[in-house]
Amino acid sequence: MKALEWQGDYLLLLDQTKLPFEEKYREARSYLEVAEAIKNMEVRGAPAIGAAAAYGYALGALKFEGEKDVFFEYMNEVLTTLQSTRPTAVNLTWALHRMEVKLREVQNLGLPEIKEALLAEAESIAEADRRMNRLIGEYGNTIVPEKANILTHCNAGSLATVEYGTALGVIRQAFESGKKIHVYVDETRPFLQGARLTVWELLQEKIPHTLITDSTAGYLMQQGKVDMVIVGADRIAANGDTANKIGTYTLAVLAHEHQIPFYVAAPSTTVDLKISSGAEIPVEERDGKEVRMFRGVRVVPDEVQVYNPSFDVTPAKYITGIITEKGIISPPYSVNLVKMLVK
Amino acid sequence: MKALEWQGDYLLLLDQTKLPFEEKYREARSYLEVAEAIKNMEVRGAPAIGAAAAYGYALGALKFEGEKDVFFEYMNEVLTTLQSTRPTAVNLTWALHRMEVKLREVQNLGLPEIKEALLAEAESIAEADRRMNRLIGEYGNTIVPEKANILTHCNAGSLATVEYGTALGVIRQAFESGKKIHVYVDETRPFLQGARLTVWELLQEKIPHTLITDSTAGYLMQQGKVDMVIVGADRIAANGDTANKIGTYTLAVLAHEHQIPFYVAAPSTTVDLKISSGAEIPVEERDGKEVRMFRGVRVVPDEVQVYNPSFDVTPAKYITGIITEKGIISPPYSVNLVKMLVK
Repeated sequence: MKALEWQGDYLLLLDQTKLPFEEKYREARSYLEVAEAIKNMEVRGAPAIGAAAAYGYALGALKFEGEKDVFFEYMNEVLTTLQSTRPTAVNLTWALHRMEVKLREVQNLGLPEIKEALLAEAESIAEADRRMNRLIGEYGNTIVPEKANILTHCNAGSLATVEYGTALGVIRQAFESGKKIHVYVDETRPFLQGARLTVWELLQEKIPHTLITDSTAGYLMQQGKVDMVIVGADRIAANGDTANKIGTYTLAVLAHEHQIPFYVAAPSTTVDLKISSGAEIPVEERDGKEVRMFRGVRVVPDEVQVYNPSFDVTPAKYITGIITEKGIISPPYSVNLVKMLVK
Repeated sequence: MKALEWQGDYLLLLDQTKLPFEEKYREARSYLEVAEAIKNMEVRGAPAIGAAAAYGYALGALKFEGEKDVFFEYMNEVLTTLQSTRPTAVNLTWALHRMEVKLREVQNLGLPEIKEALLAEAESIAEADRRMNRLIGEYGNTIVPEKANILTHCNAGSLATVEYGTALGVIRQAFESGKKIHVYVDETRPFLQGARLTVWELLQEKIPHTLITDSTAGYLMQQGKVDMVIVGADRIAANGDTANKIGTYTLAVLAHEHQIPFYVAAPSTTVDLKISSGAEIPVEERDGKEVRMFRGVRVVPDEVQVYNPSFDVTPAKYITGIITEKGIISPPYSVNLVKMLVK
């Protein structure tokens, strides 16, 4: 159940658009293929996108066959291509920035050594993600009650990361530690990551769960059936405002209205101190056909105008805490996120 | 664009499960067929269900070929069958109750005269619905600004009524009176009444609109893109608590949080004074396969547990006003709904 795995000379990607009925893999043998897979959401989820992009960058270098004098220009192109795949997840920018820094660090070595160093850097990014997720799970588990109905949105699981997951990492730890938990899974239109991916992960681990339409969350909360909400994040501003899959903001407002704790689970690499508030987070708008069609079946004609933002931004005031690999960050986030990052 | 129309000796029903790509009609020639069409949601929407059930009751009588001494027992069976099709919309109960009262009123006449009286009663219920919708539209239009972005959920249009619509009736009047309006349409999972039916109606009338996933409403409101919300209703309790399509409660909470007016448009026949609050409204839970599948395409395996309530209940405190054929009712509803009904 791995979203991506390096195979010596190519990146193996599980095509998440085909789940849960087809476990189809893509052998990405060029950086362009990695870029395409990110763009098409074959690999998705902020941490997974970050790691995939890092491997894509390394792959670009490994496949380079020219002379060193044009190598750096070429690597700029690799960077631009990977960077432009999706705008919202900061992990993509972060991972590529790390790769770029590494490249500058080793620029005076020979080409083979440079390539080796870049691959090692990608491996280290992936390894760090695995480690961070385990820690997020451990910290998160400390706030999950012995018996809890947990609502989650989209997929912040193994499939959204290199391994284990963020929001689902917390849920996994809680379940593995013997807590009696039950998960309500938002189906998460239009891409149905909840129905297709989160349910798939929970089925495999036999964690009790119930699938609902996104519109059912409010009614569930009204009935007292939700004890806490845990979601992932694509980018967290310095003040704690959090971009995540469209629908997250609605859940946060609902949780607030029902006084239900609302947690974001994400590695510290999702925090973007360069932006002060959510207003500056670029929100990707995707093709309306994702709403007009479903898996080849048409719902409405092509001429129907659709607004299809892929993310929304939840203001910090609705967020009870941010579960990171360095601990659970509480408000005021503008103070505590910086403290966490320098720790 | 009519949901139902009496054809002399049968009820013509537009099969709404096939829209927008197929305009398939069912010629319901028995009360059992009408019951089936209501159950399968071929005809849906509280007022349309009420009128269809009334015609179904008349149809049951018209097709009866036995002696008068077993007629009343038979009509009880007709009543029970039609009544048990769907539990939430009170218009069903209301219309059948009216038919039953009429039957008692004319019970001493000959069978042919009884049948004629029942058909006339069904016609009068349908005619009243047409008239009420026009008035709802007129009253509703008085509160629509000259320029407005209106959000609606599900389908409370022509297709949900005998003609014209409730929430969409208001929107039609506003548009026809020259106001510059634009409608945001929630797709309304799982049955997609918004995407399939409301968009279909708006396209035909060339009323500007944009389709969104249900999860996008919160983000739209946050961006200041929604000026008012108008939805229909399936049952309104004496205190104003309103049952409507699942997701309505979420919209009401979001509107409240963003200080956006939230209106319910419904004929007075939707008010059920017999129940004091929304807690007593029976909420239909439908088969999980509506969520497991998407227009015939499987999303998740059959074994996935699904919670699929078809409605939710919006507490009166979130409702700015209730637009009826007798005017716009304001809080306190427990006083003003009774006043309206005796008017």
